[in-house]
Amino acid sequence: MSRTSPAGTPLGDAFHVYDTTLRDGAQREGISYSVTDKLAVARLLDSLGVGFIEGGWPGALPKDTEFFHRAAAGELELRHAALVAFGSTRRAGGTAADDEQVRALLDSRAPVVTLVAKSDRRHIERALRTDVAENCAMIADTVRFLVGEGRRVFLDAEHFFDGFAYDPDTSLRVLESAMDAGADVSVLCDTNGGQLPTQLAETVTEVVARTGYRVGIHCQDDTSCAVANTVAAAQAGATHVQCTANGYGERAGNADLFAVVGNLATRLDMPVLPEGKLTELTHVSHALAEIANLAPDTHQAYVGASTFAHKAGLHASAIKVDPELYNHIDPARVGNSMRVLVTEMAGRASLELKGAELGLDLSDSPEAVTGAVRRVKELESRGWSFEAADGSLELLLRREMAAAKGEPSDVAGAPFELESHRVVLDRRPDGEVVSEATVKVHVNGHRVIATAEGNGPVNALDAALRQALVPHLPWLDEVELADYKVRILTDASGTDAVTRVLVDSRDDEQEWTTVGVHGSIVEASWLALRDALAFKAMRRRESVVVAAS
Amino acid sequence: MSRTSPAGTPLGDAFHVYDTTLRDGAQREGISYSVTDKLAVARLLDSLGVGFIEGGWPGALPKDTEFFHRAAAGELELRHAALVAFGSTRRAGGTAADDEQVRALLDSRAPVVTLVAKSDRRHIERALRTDVAENCAMIADTVRFLVGEGRRVFLDAEHFFDGFAYDPDTSLRVLESAMDAGADVSVLCDTNGGQLPTQLAETVTEVVARTGYRVGIHCQDDTSCAVANTVAAAQAGATHVQCTANGYGERAGNADLFAVVGNLATRLDMPVLPEGKLTELTHVSHALAEIANLAPDTHQAYVGASTFAHKAGLHASAIKVDPELYNHIDPARVGNSMRVLVTEMAGRASLELKGAELGLDLSDSPEAVTGAVRRVKELESRGWSFEAADGSLELLLRREMAAAKGEPSDVAGAPFELESHRVVLDRRPDGEVVSEATVKVHVNGHRVIATAEGNGPVNALDAALRQALVPHLPWLDEVELADYKVRILTDASGTDAVTRVLVDSRDDEQEWTTVGVHGSIVEASWLALRDALAFKAMRRRESVVVAAS
Repeated sequence: MSRTSPAGTPLGDAFHVYDTTLRDGAQREGISYSVTDKLAVARLLDSLGVGFIEGGWPGALPKDTEFFHRAAAGELELRHAALVAFGSTRRAGGTAADDEQVRALLDSRAPVVTLVAKSDRRHIERALRTDVAENCAMIADTVRFLVGEGRRVFLDAEHFFDGFAYDPDTSLRVLESAMDAGADVSVLCDTNGGQLPTQLAETVTEVVARTGYRVGIHCQDDTSCAVANTVAAAQAGATHVQCTANGYGERAGNADLFAVVGNLATRLDMPVLPEGKLTELTHVSHALAEIANLAPDTHQAYVGASTFAHKAGLHASAIKVDPELYNHIDPARVGNSMRVLVTEMAGRASLELKGAELGLDLSDSPEAVTGAVRRVKELESRGWSFEAADGSLELLLRREMAAAKGEPSDVAGAPFELESHRVVLDRRPDGEVVSEATVKVHVNGHRVIATAEGNGPVNALDAALRQALVPHLPWLDEVELADYKVRILTDASGTDAVTRVLVDSRDDEQEWTTVGVHGSIVEASWLALRDALAFKAMRRRESVVVAAS
Repeated sequence: MSRTSPAGTPLGDAFHVYDTTLRDGAQREGISYSVTDKLAVARLLDSLGVGFIEGGWPGALPKDTEFFHRAAAGELELRHAALVAFGSTRRAGGTAADDEQVRALLDSRAPVVTLVAKSDRRHIERALRTDVAENCAMIADTVRFLVGEGRRVFLDAEHFFDGFAYDPDTSLRVLESAMDAGADVSVLCDTNGGQLPTQLAETVTEVVARTGYRVGIHCQDDTSCAVANTVAAAQAGATHVQCTANGYGERAGNADLFAVVGNLATRLDMPVLPEGKLTELTHVSHALAEIANLAPDTHQAYVGASTFAHKAGLHASAIKVDPELYNHIDPARVGNSMRVLVTEMAGRASLELKGAELGLDLSDSPEAVTGAVRRVKELESRGWSFEAADGSLELLLRREMAAAKGEPSDVAGAPFELESHRVVLDRRPDGEVVSEATVKVHVNGHRVIATAEGNGPVNALDAALRQALVPHLPWLDEVELADYKVRILTDASGTDAVTRVLVDSRDDEQEWTTVGVHGSIVEASWLALRDALAFKAMRRRESVVVAAS
């Protein structure tokens, strides 16, 4: 159907899984993605195998403009998904080619553009303050222009369901103006989120029957039915579903990508992700929560930590014998696991899987797995989380493997030893704020003391540590701190709580994440920084071994 | 239909809103109600006007036995709802009258009993290890006995949908055995939570058509469709809906009572609560979260704090004129309210809306609005965000209003002046971590120096500040730190970034949020703490003025 190169879905063009976490998801109260965050989100979504990733609104939001620029400049290589730019039609009275906003869509270099347009007559007249004819002309002109420039175009028909109930002819005219001009999909949006599945499915069926258009669906969760509405629409003939990771979005949120995909794939046997990707659902969901700096929802369908947890009680043995009688699907299909008798088995299996993912063969090290399961459980009970901290987890697994073989555990240790550190933070009477850190470390047989300033305690500590170490370990200079996240783990106890710090580091070759947890944010940061450098040292030792062999 | 005194629904018996927060809801990982909690939950649910409150499983759980005992002894006076005891049928091979568990149901003195029974042949044979005939005899005997003792009886048909798909005749025989013996309602349970609305509605329609029984519905949320499934069942002929407050329940949870009631009442115009009670939805939801010791879900349909929040931006003026175009219902109908989030794109319209929400009349202070817009934009460009920090925003608006009137801006200032502070963080060679803070402040004409320790820098600073101020401003002791959030704002610059801190504070009367931003987390925390105390001082001055006038 596409007039342009078929910006691609990994399973062909028959069904579109379309993610809008980076645009509509970012509307959630409290989410504020940096451009680096946005790139990381897009990579994770692509690794899951979604067909389309809406990256933002270039031209309207400076961060989104920069995101598309950096993506086009080579910072985002997508294996599965096509990148989509979102934007509005030309302004009333102008031409598409001269419209600055429309130009920004082209300049984004995204192969697909989703145009939002009003499809409820009341919105056209009262909010847009124009008439139906001009609204349709704005859509048709813009679609025709973008298609002429080689873009694939989808139409987000805003407030479609309310509009269709109020004045169906106007709403259908809006779709027609886009499709006749070359748009590929008419996405029916429940913008105010008031729909329930039975009525919504009837409307989708009617629109498909009356128009023959390819129809998509975009639901908000104001009735707590966004997932159900999306699935009902797919059953009624929609072949394009717009979702956000974990249902992030404005007000009550959007349709949760993971629940929609889980339902389509496992309950309706629709292969909407590439082979083998469904098992990534849980991991990707949790990693995206980390990037959004939100706690994963423990009770979320398919991917929540509690979602296959059974308070065993009387049925423990029955569940053990016949788990399929007590779970609607095998949780392993979506990368989740059943928890009944907090089984070592579940822990072992997931750590072995994780080890394999990290390239570690744990199959002949049962003691290493036992040790690692014990250590992970102990740390998690104190607030640690390895969901997003692959770097720290790999270090932990390697330490346990070394211990099981009787090797020294410093194969995965830091390349230095800390004696002590001190951070002094002054706010002086003149208002100046000074942060100063001193570290005392032992490295390559030397005792080094270094002091540095920074714009905050962690920055000062990092600077002092580098000052102490780089003269002795010059390759540490290659490590760059890419991002730094803090979560306070608290139960209504205010500042008297535990702090979890995640540090993303990178060098020329890869990026890794480490974690630290402590009552003091500075000590938690220290632990994560230390692991970040230990990880680099481990990779370096490996490459030295490879080079020598 | 009832053979006994019609244990009552406030709107007659035509439609049952049945709450099982105290039994199925308590299965949620992390919930542990005391008996006192259970009584408080029941009172709140009754005040909302639900028809039935399932109190627990007397005889199986000691706390539940005690709950029914205390309820019957006069500690629970219900104005609307009937109390329900949940339990199982007699054991295989015995008689109902001699069964200890069945006796416990009678002893509970609850007027209504819900019996759970297996309705999936695989569960009857593999988990219960009996045959269909004996299973049905167990049900019929128990129902007949309880009805004979004057109880109204409902049947929870466990695993009904999976069982009906596998062997419909067995599942219907199970219902028949209960209804022929005198049960009132056949509650079809999606125990494993795998249903989607379209299929579920078809099954409900078929069961109603084939049996003519009064049918109820009980859904789990494993597909994220529990609310949609419950509503779809009601549309397909079910006249009894089982829900839990906020969707609490095992695994992914149950159908959320507030979303189901919200949908039925506002979207389908079914008057399922007594007149005037719908506006209690938001308050009761939040109060029940408090009792469960869980943070209210800010994005929950109908009742969430963010659920009617709009990131205003360009559409602020449209929302101001036509709020009904942007909300699926008037939030006041469910006791919630619309909030406009002041974000990057803040303009005059959204600040005026926000001011009105905070009770400030800015209409005759155009200069104050101009000043506030300028100040908000300037701060936001440096990483501040007032989206969640109403406390800091109110202080800012009041300062601008005072400035516009030529009044001193300290009407919204802190009740003290800082000279300096210093925080020292030590990690000693023995591994011990110590945080110590010293503040020098001027308060009520005194210069005060205080030093305190804490488990981290912010905690130490807060402790030192309180130590310095409380002897002079004893009312500051009422301020409690409720929560503390940290976000690092970074673009690929690692620890060299800006930190944003949000502090939630509360006293006996209200809760407020303040914000601070700085390169150093400690200084950012300081700014948010200072605003938190300034807010308290402002409220106190107002109440003093009101008391004096």
